[in-house]
Amino acid sequence: MFAARSVASKSYLPFTRAQALGVGSLHGSASCPGAKVAVVLSGCGVYDGTEIHEASAILVHLSRGGAEVQMYAPNISQMHVIDHGKGQPVEKESRNVLSESARIARGNITDLAQLNASNHDGVIFPGGFGAAKNLSTFAVDGKDCKVNADVERVLKDFHKAGKPIGLCCISPVLAARVLPGVEVTVGHETEEGGRWPYASTAQAITALGATHCVKDVTISSLRLSHEVHVDQKNKVVTSPAFMCETKLHLVFDGIGAMVTDVLKLIGKK
Amino acid sequence: MFAARSVASKSYLPFTRAQALGVGSLHGSASCPGAKVAVVLSGCGVYDGTEIHEASAILVHLSRGGAEVQMYAPNISQMHVIDHGKGQPVEKESRNVLSESARIARGNITDLAQLNASNHDGVIFPGGFGAAKNLSTFAVDGKDCKVNADVERVLKDFHKAGKPIGLCCISPVLAARVLPGVEVTVGHETEEGGRWPYASTAQAITALGATHCVKDVTISSLRLSHEVHVDQKNKVVTSPAFMCETKLHLVFDGIGAMVTDVLKLIGKK
Repeated sequence: MFAARSVASKSYLPFTRAQALGVGSLHGSASCPGAKVAVVLSGCGVYDGTEIHEASAILVHLSRGGAEVQMYAPNISQMHVIDHGKGQPVEKESRNVLSESARIARGNITDLAQLNASNHDGVIFPGGFGAAKNLSTFAVDGKDCKVNADVERVLKDFHKAGKPIGLCCISPVLAARVLPGVEVTVGHETEEGGRWPYASTAQAITALGATHCVKDVTISSLRLSHEVHVDQKNKVVTSPAFMCETKLHLVFDGIGAMVTDVLKLIGKK
Repeated sequence: MFAARSVASKSYLPFTRAQALGVGSLHGSASCPGAKVAVVLSGCGVYDGTEIHEASAILVHLSRGGAEVQMYAPNISQMHVIDHGKGQPVEKESRNVLSESARIARGNITDLAQLNASNHDGVIFPGGFGAAKNLSTFAVDGKDCKVNADVERVLKDFHKAGKPIGLCCISPVLAARVLPGVEVTVGHETEEGGRWPYASTAQAITALGATHCVKDVTISSLRLSHEVHVDQKNKVVTSPAFMCETKLHLVFDGIGAMVTDVLKLIGKK
């Protein structure tokens, strides 16, 4: 508290106490007319939470599409904490998924327990190991994984209401587990010399009872949208994103295609 | 360690131990010919570290520009830890700037002490309160702030070598403190009804002996690049970014203009 108070007590400083402490909103899109989209986060950092660049790309594309965004995350402890510099779990450290996700949301985030499908036109789940460690037990249990009860409820409610669901990277496993027979992509089905290091996820998708569809991250020249799979019947849109070892701007573009297809299905774009 | 070991021990799982633990690289741009750009982070999260979306935007635009990127952060403790969900400092919790920055870098990051200007063509500092709390004492000391010794060395070395420096949001205060007479922008100089909540930073810039130049985040229709100030003499490029309460995709575009101008100054684009 000392630092915060000292910030507020010096009149020449540019920051108010609220500014220094973290009371703020992500961006001003809330006043724009358009689709109301929920984004569900799972922490902050690829190896124990949400993949940061996937989340940011989703938010940039939703902002450009004029969507009204509300972010959610479960108010639970992370499976574990990875020191992303050392590449190792941190012993005896615990972090809360909602608090860490708030770093991506600039503080403007709500407990997933309060996400009601009737208040939104669609929902998007970025990837990162958080989807496989915090939103489900896929990282530990594979095809026998359990999905967080609120995540399962949200996916089933949006599906039942005919509202589109977007997922990328590893998060399609959540839909594969919860929505019987859904079609999703996690990219290619063989490693291809390290280009698709998580290729065996495709077999797990099949083992979960879903259909896997091979897709690329982007087709940058022709823009044929082959980088996204749209399950029209189930209104589920998936993109491989960081399942592929490729350039960041291609991941950004592939996620843009996913967001665009979600907004198209919502019917407001 | 349990969770990590269990991940590796089950053959049906899609992840190797290295994948689950966090050994990876951000993207494949290292093999691209082009400008070698260092990006200096200050943690992970707007209120006690790097502003995540600014960092991601910088990396997307550098990737699209064909740059080879290496990320750096100081191996020091953060000034404090803010719970971004509650908007309050967390008592008795300490986080390391390099380890937290590694979340943005997907583990591919180096101690700032090892950043040598001779190995790079330019350097970019995203914003976030980390620039004012961890890379300097600006959040506490304002115009009397001190700058981290490695940050000061890096800025002076790039400047002396005539290599461009890009900064956005609050990070231009670092250049204002270290490079006498530099011209920078942090946006507008009055709050304008909350649109520029940190407007008084401009006065601090002047008090530091620098020249403040009023700029907008983006000029989205005409693309006249008025969203960026380029100090041609000092090769310092600045953009307001999240100093303005605006839409995320406009911040993204403004940062794109900054990155483009840095690459232009490097002369490889």
